Amino acid sequence: MAYELYYWDGIEGRGEFVRLALEQASADYVDVARTAAGTQKMMEYLQGRHGPLKTPFAPPFLRDGETVVSHVANILNYLGPKLKLVPDDEALRTLAHGLQLTIADFVGEVHDTHHPISTADYFEDQREEAKRRTASFLKHRVPKFIGYFNRLIAENPARSGHILDNELSYVDLSLFQVAEGLAYAFPRAMANFDSDYPEVAALREKVRALPAITAYLKSDRHLPFNENGIFRHYPELDQNAG
Amino acid sequence: MAYELYYWDGIEGRGEFVRLALEQASADYVDVARTAAGTQKMMEYLQGRHGPLKTPFAPPFLRDGETVVSHVANILNYLGPKLKLVPDDEALRTLAHGLQLTIADFVGEVHDTHHPISTADYFEDQREEAKRRTASFLKHRVPKFIGYFNRLIAENPARSGHILDNELSYVDLSLFQVAEGLAYAFPRAMANFDSDYPEVAALREKVRALPAITAYLKSDRHLPFNENGIFRHYPELDQNAG
Repeated sequence: MAYELYYWDGIEGRGEFVRLALEQASADYVDVARTAAGTQKMMEYLQGRHGPLKTPFAPPFLRDGETVVSHVANILNYLGPKLKLVPDDEALRTLAHGLQLTIADFVGEVHDTHHPISTADYFEDQREEAKRRTASFLKHRVPKFIGYFNRLIAENPARSGHILDNELSYVDLSLFQVAEGLAYAFPRAMANFDSDYPEVAALREKVRALPAITAYLKSDRHLPFNENGIFRHYPELDQNAG
Repeated sequence: MAYELYYWDGIEGRGEFVRLALEQASADYVDVARTAAGTQKMMEYLQGRHGPLKTPFAPPFLRDGETVVSHVANILNYLGPKLKLVPDDEALRTLAHGLQLTIADFVGEVHDTHHPISTADYFEDQREEAKRRTASFLKHRVPKFIGYFNRLIAENPARSGHILDNELSYVDLSLFQVAEGLAYAFPRAMANFDSDYPEVAALREKVRALPAITAYLKSDRHLPFNENGIFRHYPELDQNAG
């Protein structure tokens, strides 16, 4: 039976990290909210209509038969072994999951660059605060997070260009999406990305060149970035590279 | 060999969610940063001195022999079966992990009530923004998150007062800490907590009464809340219950 991915229609958002794994593995899946009446089906889960064991707090969530898995990192930890997108070794799987949770924290901070005060209000209602938050994010947080990932790839004993061992993992796919998102949201601030973070930049191109990913990115299953997702391009938040 | 918990000395913070599980299970553990030269030992991991497979992005992390596990939810997912603090059933373990990740998201939002603009700046430098963020948090986010957990406990088919099945889990212990933290940080806003969220309130008292937890809370291993942790009491952020 096909995996069912439930995520808001119309945006890449957090769902994209799951899509990339499913696509790379050529897994059989349905992006439910993009099918007829799919958003309604998703809302029924969120409203608790399928009982407390199948009531995620928020999308994305994945249904695999009778199992409903919530949160990107939990979904990827669940799918990783099935899709052969994580090493078999349990210690490396635990490490991969920790890396994915670090990405999740980073993604949360990306979201808060445009919504530092309240998710219940529009960006335009918190624009000045967003400018200050973004300035701090670009100065402190991007170097800390992306520098961390760059270092781990550089120091991978396998020197494979992947972050873990010799193999492509779901963490690599997620780092591709992070690099893509930063380039979209902050093109000026990321002008030196390739020289500042050469390992992440090389991994990004390596992922982009994977045949299944290349095909996916050209397909209509793939959505472009836009200003409803996590990575948003607001020119007034971007700034010259430091 | 004893588990080694690495977390900043002097605060409950995110480490407390791990401590509660270790204490409830009467596990043999060392709170490393609170031992002589312990913070230095922790920094050596963060600086990468133990190699890329043992370089967490941030505390807390747990060392179990040769395995280093980062992020609260990953640590609890790892410890849960070993400490008998999660059901054996794999689907329930995946569910428990998703619930813990929802708690992690909530804890991140609690942190941002007092640091909405930049973690690199003091609270006093973002006090006005913190007031606005906190107002939105108390109005929208607390009801959404705590109401969600309250509902799941109420609808647990086992009607055990626990969030999962018939048994105490690490998720219950974490919900205790969340309820304690909210009461400390926002005593006025939480005045109606027990009537608004009766299931979570009852669970909180159930956890507090566990002999191992009662003993822990009285011990000098347990730190009080303070204004360096996640849950901080700044009177100007608190407000009357709605």
